[in-house]
Amino acid sequence: MKKHNFSAGPSILPQEVLKKTAEAVINFNHLNLSLIEISHRSKEFIDVMENARSLVKELLNLPEGYSVLFLQGGASLEFLMTPYNLLKINGKAAYIDTGAWSTKAIKEAKLLGEINVVASSKDKTYNYIPKNYTIPTAIDYVHCTSNNTIYGTQIKEFPKTDALLVCDMSSDIFSRKLDFTQFDLVYAGAQKNMGPAGTTLVIVKDEILGKTGRNIPSMLDFQVHISKDSMFNTPPVFAVYTSMLTLEWLKNLGGIAAIEKRNEKKATLLYDEIDRNSHFKGFAAKEDRSLMNVTFNLTNEADKETFDKLWNDAGISGLKGHRSVGGYRASIYNAMPIESVQVLVSTMQQLEKQIG
Amino acid sequence: MKKHNFSAGPSILPQEVLKKTAEAVINFNHLNLSLIEISHRSKEFIDVMENARSLVKELLNLPEGYSVLFLQGGASLEFLMTPYNLLKINGKAAYIDTGAWSTKAIKEAKLLGEINVVASSKDKTYNYIPKNYTIPTAIDYVHCTSNNTIYGTQIKEFPKTDALLVCDMSSDIFSRKLDFTQFDLVYAGAQKNMGPAGTTLVIVKDEILGKTGRNIPSMLDFQVHISKDSMFNTPPVFAVYTSMLTLEWLKNLGGIAAIEKRNEKKATLLYDEIDRNSHFKGFAAKEDRSLMNVTFNLTNEADKETFDKLWNDAGISGLKGHRSVGGYRASIYNAMPIESVQVLVSTMQQLEKQIG
Repeated sequence: MKKHNFSAGPSILPQEVLKKTAEAVINFNHLNLSLIEISHRSKEFIDVMENARSLVKELLNLPEGYSVLFLQGGASLEFLMTPYNLLKINGKAAYIDTGAWSTKAIKEAKLLGEINVVASSKDKTYNYIPKNYTIPTAIDYVHCTSNNTIYGTQIKEFPKTDALLVCDMSSDIFSRKLDFTQFDLVYAGAQKNMGPAGTTLVIVKDEILGKTGRNIPSMLDFQVHISKDSMFNTPPVFAVYTSMLTLEWLKNLGGIAAIEKRNEKKATLLYDEIDRNSHFKGFAAKEDRSLMNVTFNLTNEADKETFDKLWNDAGISGLKGHRSVGGYRASIYNAMPIESVQVLVSTMQQLEKQIG
Repeated sequence: MKKHNFSAGPSILPQEVLKKTAEAVINFNHLNLSLIEISHRSKEFIDVMENARSLVKELLNLPEGYSVLFLQGGASLEFLMTPYNLLKINGKAAYIDTGAWSTKAIKEAKLLGEINVVASSKDKTYNYIPKNYTIPTAIDYVHCTSNNTIYGTQIKEFPKTDALLVCDMSSDIFSRKLDFTQFDLVYAGAQKNMGPAGTTLVIVKDEILGKTGRNIPSMLDFQVHISKDSMFNTPPVFAVYTSMLTLEWLKNLGGIAAIEKRNEKKATLLYDEIDRNSHFKGFAAKEDRSLMNVTFNLTNEADKETFDKLWNDAGISGLKGHRSVGGYRASIYNAMPIESVQVLVSTMQQLEKQIG
């Protein structure tokens, strides 16, 4: 019996993607060779890379002038590549601090210049998204994190700025309709809605690059990777291929508009139960609740053992909350079927019945 | 029919590894979850990472005081991480230039300090390993590339130096017995003898770190990765797991001593034919010939069409030489069975028979 997988990341992927990618590890494209033992310079793999990049452009409705890259190093390396590529020597940038990942991004950027943290929700363990902050003028870029897995918050309205807008979209890219023309740089680790751990998606507006005056190391330079079509060095072949399959799955399903509806339905089902059932309380501020990561706690900690047994018995896995928040976190990414959310809601209702 | 896969990298992996890793993509360790959809913080994946690291230590007979890391970014990112971690501010380093990969390593290191290229075989398209060069005193480290895939050369005797010794061992690690106490830092992209593209092995002597006076970005800092047991950020789960399986395969086979014998036998078979058959000539200097990549050319370029048809018909793939050398390159890494080398030798003998 397949588990109901609520893991925060690496996380659930479509079953058909897992099946196809396992087949390719044995025999890829009827080549009588494994996907992972062919040259990345082969026509077959170049096709995979090009298809993956063009699916990203199509699904996100990217306008002309943006490049799509599949790199390595995760969002964590992008925390460094962002200032290397966008922060002028003696330049400044503004960061919105919405949690642990923003904090890490700020730390790395500070190595290269003056970073202004213009808003933070640290005062309430990041359970809300800051609003009504002022972005200083004369900055090179504004950086934000669209979705905060640990706390279950999500930005609904992105900062308005004349500076460049950068977004770490690791945990909610491909989950909802967004106007990408508002962003100049978007990056995302694959291991939530796109694929397995091991590759990082970068979407960057070409015209913003090459303007910092910095001598950028090759592997950290977006222009180097663009000029080599994401093949400056050997790409993570398996992760790129599996991402391509997941993007194809999403396209066949009806694209972002279709998945957004499914995601809203799943989230509503779960949040409604949290709000209705007096044994649970939501962690994040209602207006900032994430469609991807639903964080909640027991009203009475003494019920923990009972509830944990209920969801374990129901075949649910990955529900434990992050240590900094406690309680529970149900990550309901694109590939999560509504049936699994229904199973979780049932166990919450069972708890109510058992303890009255 | 499985192909005879002579690809230079990503390259052949053991068949049983491909089978097991494909199974894990469907259902890992009877968890009823895929390997690529579980948390890297799960006990099951932490076991994989620890097992992979301890297999490296065991197979290479590493002494106490060395750390083993599985990172991302390939050798290309190590070209930058090496000087970041070892080159003092205003320090100097010496590099041996044995080809395209050394050249790239030199380029990145130059961003951080004074780099002396103390020897180069560029004068003869890198078809030999330089010897009898002088390493200056008062340098922080010496950097060399143990095996040069493009040209088919391999270092047999490593530089003797009082400075730190760094080696890019991407294309021949785990292929021959070496005394690792002579090295202070070794790195290797996985995609030859260790696993699929997507992870990089780093072996570093702990006591050499933290001495440059540099403020190193987190993702480029070996000490950060060591302190987090290679889990500072989400590791490339699939690539690490497949590497672990390949290392287990190697251990079960008898370890490095056993594979070295097999590798010598395969290489001898092929080099003997190149030297015997007047229709072929080897590219690399005899004393520097690689056990991993056998480079050769036709004596008469007019035979190309005939020979290409012969090996294609025999089910051989990946034999084309690198564009900078031309001709042929037979990469005969650890997982290549001797039967495939025999098939290649037979096609060479067939050419001889056909054209006399």
